[in-house]
Amino acid sequence: MSTLTLFRDAAETKTFAAGETIFVEGDDGKHLYVVMSGSVRLSVTGRTLEKVGKGGVFGEMALIDAAPRSATATALTECALVPVTAQRFKALVREDPDFALEIMRVMAARLRSMDRRL
Amino acid sequence: MSTLTLFRDAAETKTFAAGETIFVEGDDGKHLYVVMSGSVRLSVTGRTLEKVGKGGVFGEMALIDAAPRSATATALTECALVPVTAQRFKALVREDPDFALEIMRVMAARLRSMDRRL
Repeated sequence: MSTLTLFRDAAETKTFAAGETIFVEGDDGKHLYVVMSGSVRLSVTGRTLEKVGKGGVFGEMALIDAAPRSATATALTECALVPVTAQRFKALVREDPDFALEIMRVMAARLRSMDRRL
Repeated sequence: MSTLTLFRDAAETKTFAAGETIFVEGDDGKHLYVVMSGSVRLSVTGRTLEKVGKGGVFGEMALIDAAPRSATATALTECALVPVTAQRFKALVREDPDFALEIMRVMAARLRSMDRRL
């Protein structure tokens, strides 16, 4: 089951306008976000790390280690996001190992992309 | 339960001498490794990414996304490692959500460390 399918019927979707800030490096992180439509830019000190599109996930790190946001997220286009709390995230990891593996795949892809920048 | 506790009684431990190569960037990855004693250096094109000590885990990325090794692992000191196959890894993620969360914490720490290098 893809992450998108898992959240397709989520009641709570937040919409951001193009250019709007979703969170800022150093913020406390209370949610991860699943991108239902549109795209989001992740950046550190103004440098783009990644563009996250439909079906993508971001903001998971602050839920995993309870540390502040390591990057800034900005809506590149108008976008619809499902916010997922830490409690729901941990319940999903427990109930759905494929969700856990999907989150690990997202993180592995980010680590590989960072390794290539060294 | 810590990762170390989970593998404390593992039958199969591999020992590497100081300076010995565990795997090389670009290799096919068939195992992740749990460090039971000693320490390991992870590097990309000769640059040290991280030192992994007792209780640490490395090599998980190639199991998660089935892509080649993104880094080289070398024994910094004599070290004892438990190799974990992809099959066992996925079984552990299914059986033990705390193991899944621990792997995510390891990856989140690596991503934060990479973000700081940008």
